Amino acid sequence: MNFEMILAAAERLKGHARLTPMLSSPFLDRLAGRRVLIKAECLQHTGSFKFRGAWSAISALSPDVRKCGVIAFSSGNHAQGIAHAASLHKAPSVIVMPSDAPQLKIENTRALGAEVVLYDRATEDRDEIGEQLSVERGLTLIRPFDEPQVIAGQGTTGLEIASQADALGVSDADLLVPCGGGGLTSGIALACAERAPGLRVRPVEPEGFDDVKRSLATGQVQRNARLSGNLCDAIITPQPGELTFPIMKSRCGPGLTVTEDEALSAVAQAFLRLKIVAEPGGAVALAAALFKGSELQSENAIVVVSGGNVDPQMFTRALATL
Amino acid sequence: MNFEMILAAAERLKGHARLTPMLSSPFLDRLAGRRVLIKAECLQHTGSFKFRGAWSAISALSPDVRKCGVIAFSSGNHAQGIAHAASLHKAPSVIVMPSDAPQLKIENTRALGAEVVLYDRATEDRDEIGEQLSVERGLTLIRPFDEPQVIAGQGTTGLEIASQADALGVSDADLLVPCGGGGLTSGIALACAERAPGLRVRPVEPEGFDDVKRSLATGQVQRNARLSGNLCDAIITPQPGELTFPIMKSRCGPGLTVTEDEALSAVAQAFLRLKIVAEPGGAVALAAALFKGSELQSENAIVVVSGGNVDPQMFTRALATL
Repeated sequence: MNFEMILAAAERLKGHARLTPMLSSPFLDRLAGRRVLIKAECLQHTGSFKFRGAWSAISALSPDVRKCGVIAFSSGNHAQGIAHAASLHKAPSVIVMPSDAPQLKIENTRALGAEVVLYDRATEDRDEIGEQLSVERGLTLIRPFDEPQVIAGQGTTGLEIASQADALGVSDADLLVPCGGGGLTSGIALACAERAPGLRVRPVEPEGFDDVKRSLATGQVQRNARLSGNLCDAIITPQPGELTFPIMKSRCGPGLTVTEDEALSAVAQAFLRLKIVAEPGGAVALAAALFKGSELQSENAIVVVSGGNVDPQMFTRALATL
Repeated sequence: MNFEMILAAAERLKGHARLTPMLSSPFLDRLAGRRVLIKAECLQHTGSFKFRGAWSAISALSPDVRKCGVIAFSSGNHAQGIAHAASLHKAPSVIVMPSDAPQLKIENTRALGAEVVLYDRATEDRDEIGEQLSVERGLTLIRPFDEPQVIAGQGTTGLEIASQADALGVSDADLLVPCGGGGLTSGIALACAERAPGLRVRPVEPEGFDDVKRSLATGQVQRNARLSGNLCDAIITPQPGELTFPIMKSRCGPGLTVTEDEALSAVAQAFLRLKIVAEPGGAVALAAALFKGSELQSENAIVVVSGGNVDPQMFTRALATL
């Protein structure tokens, strides 16, 4: 896993992934007490950054392997990314999803052309199911984060951030990234270490699900006690990845956490001031910029809004905080 | 008013206005029965295309005139555009607004640095008030659409659409534009006539407020019977502009209209499939693509989502249609 793989992924993604805009609002600057730039990755195809990693991994397969199909397990956003990227490559895809995933994500994944296999998050092991199906049907398993070509794809977000921040005259900033398994965070950290070393990557997690923060603080992989029961479901994973953790350990600043209410409030501010739709898990980095400013070091914050796949009911609940 | 003024405005806007993204979704393509590209101008500074015209007009003033300040009358989006563009130029601004404008727009305009003067839409004439204040205080009046430098600024949206459509391989399309006084529509029509003649501009209005559609159909300026009482308040004007109508007459295809329910449904689809926040008036062109497909001629539709300044209550109402 190295920087050159990110450059190669960027070549493969050219004309397929969107160059998402860097947004800002004087209102958010005032609220945060510093300049805030927002990388609106919720505007990526399928509504999250996951399309980048999916396209990167699928496009890196040889044509014969690709035509047999791919398989993925995901709580939703990785699923949609894989389903859409596979369809565009005319490759079949099977997605193993928890049966309690938001209905919208399940439906979208099917509509994007994937076969969806549901499992019980409490009693079944998704890795086992995924690997078994993979062997039975000759499908290539694409892991959601612990997979070099997926990390390389997510890292293309970092290349864009480096160049967009530079165009806006920002070379020094806390770069806040919503963090689950660490694919996006480690990819961005790798890209920025080369292209924008003044942007210090800081993973952001929901309070109570801060495995990455604790792992970075102790230098050892820490697990979450619980795996569900938070609005930010999209970014909850048992522990940092085997590939992603060493990258984050050597390149990231300390992690941050936000409450569910802070995440909901960030969703509402993104609606009001940026005109983008963020899901709670995708808005945790914006929440950290708005509500955890005392933990930041730079006069500038760059924030990744990583996904926007939120049910209307949840969004309405967020708007009610305004 | 000519194409060269749009090119000059584009130079002045460089690095100040955002290059807004061209979005799409396979779900919307399916719903519309054709390929749909969405120019997300709600992501422009201040949440609407109006920032372009405001910046264009203010930056075109000589420094001594500019420092005396500007004045504008507006139902909201033009107000915010002028207030913000004036602040960035360190020029004072006075905004004359109807007292029944959405509270959010009034507050935002003040917070962006303008002095707000309210008037009664039913009993007072905004033009008269604006011109009186203009004379009294030495302010330069910037009209919302019947002003060459404003049309030139809005026309930069057309330059971007021409180049983004070309990059996506689209050279033939119905180009649907939300239309009030016609500043955006005529600017885009001027730009595309030069840069992308295969994109046929079609103004879209709310049913019952279709002055432009009727004016184009009869070749003579027609007025609206009513001036309020529609969710799409942002794009309701008495009649097409003196400058904008001749441009539209010679360069636009027939107008289209959509119902309030169709506009609300388009707001909901933009939330669900594009992850952008559109206001009802800003979503009428998307509504036409989704629900008035039989009136389109090309296999492709390009849609401008022109603004996203919507109250949380109205947005919640739109989401309830899903």
